[in-house]
Amino acid sequence: MTANISCTELQVRYAETDQMGVAHHSNYIIWCEQARTDHMRNLGVSYRGLEDQGIRLAVVDAHVRYRAPARYDDLIRIRCWVRDVTSRRVVFGYALERGNDGHLLATAQTALIAVDSQHALTRIPPGVRDRMVIVPDPVRL
Amino acid sequence: MTANISCTELQVRYAETDQMGVAHHSNYIIWCEQARTDHMRNLGVSYRGLEDQGIRLAVVDAHVRYRAPARYDDLIRIRCWVRDVTSRRVVFGYALERGNDGHLLATAQTALIAVDSQHALTRIPPGVRDRMVIVPDPVRL
Amino acid sequence: MTANISCTELQVRYAETDQMGVAHHSNYIIWCEQARTDHMRNLGVSYRGLEDQGIRLAVVDAHVRYRAPARYDDLIRIRCWVRDVTSRRVVFGYALERGNDGHLLATAQTALIAVDSQHALTRIPPGVRDRMVIVPDPVRL
Amino acid sequence: MTANISCTELQVRYAETDQMGVAHHSNYIIWCEQARTDHMRNLGVSYRGLEDQGIRLAVVDAHVRYRAPARYDDLIRIRCWVRDVTSRRVVFGYALERGNDGHLLATAQTALIAVDSQHALTRIPPGVRDRMVIVPDPVRL
Repeated sequence: MTANISCTELQVRYAETDQMGVAHHSNYIIWCEQARTDHMRNLGVSYRGLEDQGIRLAVVDAHVRYRAPARYDDLIRIRCWVRDVTSRRVVFGYALERGNDGHLLATAQTALIAVDSQHALTRIPPGVRDRMVIVPDPVRL
Repeated sequence: MTANISCTELQVRYAETDQMGVAHHSNYIIWCEQARTDHMRNLGVSYRGLEDQGIRLAVVDAHVRYRAPARYDDLIRIRCWVRDVTSRRVVFGYALERGNDGHLLATAQTALIAVDSQHALTRIPPGVRDRMVIVPDPVRL
Repeated sequence: MTANISCTELQVRYAETDQMGVAHHSNYIIWCEQARTDHMRNLGVSYRGLEDQGIRLAVVDAHVRYRAPARYDDLIRIRCWVRDVTSRRVVFGYALERGNDGHLLATAQTALIAVDSQHALTRIPPGVRDRMVIVPDPVRL
Repeated sequence: MTANISCTELQVRYAETDQMGVAHHSNYIIWCEQARTDHMRNLGVSYRGLEDQGIRLAVVDAHVRYRAPARYDDLIRIRCWVRDVTSRRVVFGYALERGNDGHLLATAQTALIAVDSQHALTRIPPGVRDRMVIVPDPVRL
């Protein structure tokens, strides 16, 4: 795995399960966000620092394909990478796997745009954009 | 609005906001679920009753396009309808609007499959499937 | 029920259940918050308006007693009232009941203090404090 | 720190913040749950295994004192210990500290009772109870 694909690990919380006995599907969106901020940090971009400069990255599109359920206490490994980036928009890809056997649980992608503190469209700072190295998808999304 | 498009209203909770000052994007998935169970109830299908029969509908695909932010205390109106249904799979569409001015906040679609209590693939009970009337999209998704 | 005890109704969401088959206990804190902002609105205080003036009410103490589980799709009725108020601190009481039979599910209390946008301690605006009418507990907390 | 006080670390997620710019107070209940299952695991009790035997530990009382706000991306360190245990009930204590400077953010306690899969009161299995070593509070709750 290259530095341009990050790897985040987390454990499914009890509060994240539902009465179907599996992790509720809304949590994958939150887990991807955690993987994305980890990936940005690995690329040398602090999302917290970006916000301090008055720039936010707002999610405009999220698409998740659920392939197998995740269960309470399962270790989840999330690979995250940049699929595409332009001056105002960046697309991240995600592969969520079960930690103990590498079984693919879900794939996802989210598109984000840069906005200022008034939610007006702005540019991704060039220094940030330069760090967002595009890589080919390591799995089919 | 026909009976085959349901309308659910909810108010953005404080706990649903994030430090960007808007509703966090993961909540839309939860709101759509609420709209979907309301729509099924309107069609004469109780999701709670379905589970009592050992049938669950598991989300296998979720896609949300976020068009404008929702804010704390905003009234959100969600229209929900069936886009497609087969013997094992049903696709719902959603349009989320701001209650006070009808501004379109987001559109979404989710695909669900029928599984039994062991998460094995099964059929949507024919009596349930018959009630899932497909309607043309009232907005572009 | 007097105007000084508010009544909020909500339905348990599927995403709020856990694999124990009941509503996860963390949600009661969120439901109480909804009841509290409803109660403030009934007393003539908009929490959204308060924030626009730069005043926030931050929870400093929360105590919930869970008496019976709430289940998916259950209607929950929450009574909320002011137990105590001083220049800087207000304590709310809550009784959560099952809608269909009035069975008491939980009682709770939360204490909040006024803070400014920098999280520094401040006073509850006198006009707000005056509206926060203290009532005797309608149930034993 | 003895083995009878566990230490769990987590990072505040963006989705856990609210528009006050801090972690929403409902999340502390979820973080404590994570610390509690970690502590049980350290004591040799798998909560997942307990559920497989048909025993659940249901929260009947939760009390949190919030002392200072937690912010996005903050590392949170949670110490967890057993305050009291009887044949049917166990009380856990928690101290939540900011990871980088050890500042105390919150203290909490939760009481849990053993229930079976029908939510009827039962006993904590003796082998589990024996492992739940009571320790004096390391901080004032």
